[in-house]
Amino acid sequence: MFVLGIDPGLTRCGYCVLEVPPNAALVSGATARPKAVALGVIRTSPSDEVHHRLAELQFELRALMTEFPPIALAVERVLFQVNVRTAMSVGQACGVAMVEAVNAGCEVVQYSPNEVKLAVAGWGNADKAQMQQMVQTLLGLAKLPDPPDAADAAALALCHIAMAPMRAAAARAGAR
Amino acid sequence: MFVLGIDPGLTRCGYCVLEVPPNAALVSGATARPKAVALGVIRTSPSDEVHHRLAELQFELRALMTEFPPIALAVERVLFQVNVRTAMSVGQACGVAMVEAVNAGCEVVQYSPNEVKLAVAGWGNADKAQMQQMVQTLLGLAKLPDPPDAADAAALALCHIAMAPMRAAAARAGAR
Repeated sequence: MFVLGIDPGLTRCGYCVLEVPPNAALVSGATARPKAVALGVIRTSPSDEVHHRLAELQFELRALMTEFPPIALAVERVLFQVNVRTAMSVGQACGVAMVEAVNAGCEVVQYSPNEVKLAVAGWGNADKAQMQQMVQTLLGLAKLPDPPDAADAAALALCHIAMAPMRAAAARAGAR
Repeated sequence: MFVLGIDPGLTRCGYCVLEVPPNAALVSGATARPKAVALGVIRTSPSDEVHHRLAELQFELRALMTEFPPIALAVERVLFQVNVRTAMSVGQACGVAMVEAVNAGCEVVQYSPNEVKLAVAGWGNADKAQMQQMVQTLLGLAKLPDPPDAADAAALALCHIAMAPMRAAAARAGAR
């Protein structure tokens, strides 16, 4: 089964589909290494109008989710951003991705940058280069994942896989 | 034919559908008063998760665009916002609205707050109350449009109607 990580953006939207063993390995915390079956970026042209770029992004994400139907979409919980214009365009791309995921019937989970760094690199202040190396190691990639947006998307998917057992336990405890 | 104005937001998304005479009145600048056939806000609950709220918003916007198929969606070009968290959630709602409009086959046009104020109230520094009064007057409403999100959406649609002749002329000039 598949977990999709997305680092939303209009110019570059990082994505990573990780394949994990079926039978609730996610929930039991089984340690089989997840396999990256799709890793890259969706680009749209800055010279196109925003709404056409969003429609293009929607088309590409829909194709990705059709090819690898995810059980969960992991996206970053953006707490602050360099500037408001960037936040708007990240928000637009993120909104489109989230709605696609809901319509595809998959869970959507947001993680803060700190949660992602902690889960993937072991500490909350890991830098970009360390994160890329950890992603490479955890996924057994032949080279560093590049561009960074793809690495960020992979880190989000890995974070979800790492957090899933805890989330499931919390849900069980809450249901009692 | 219909022009849709949207003031995007997750907690309150203002909308206004204006009916204008057919036969390219928009382009020729004919002065028949537009009629508000739908004016209000779509609300989603802050206690729900963001992705479910976005999906609900998408559902409601789709229903609106099905009932009143717009030839154009007018949305605000957000240049700055009080804080980044607000910008993110406005961006998410805006992204969903824009993609719905593209998929409905209608034009999407963004206007800056200044353009809207200038087109509707006659000057770029009009305040909220003045804008509400102008919207009430221009649409011949029995009372002030309320909440402000609905008034803002109406102002956007009115701005598009006011600007359409100029946009059409510019497009003709560009095509020569």
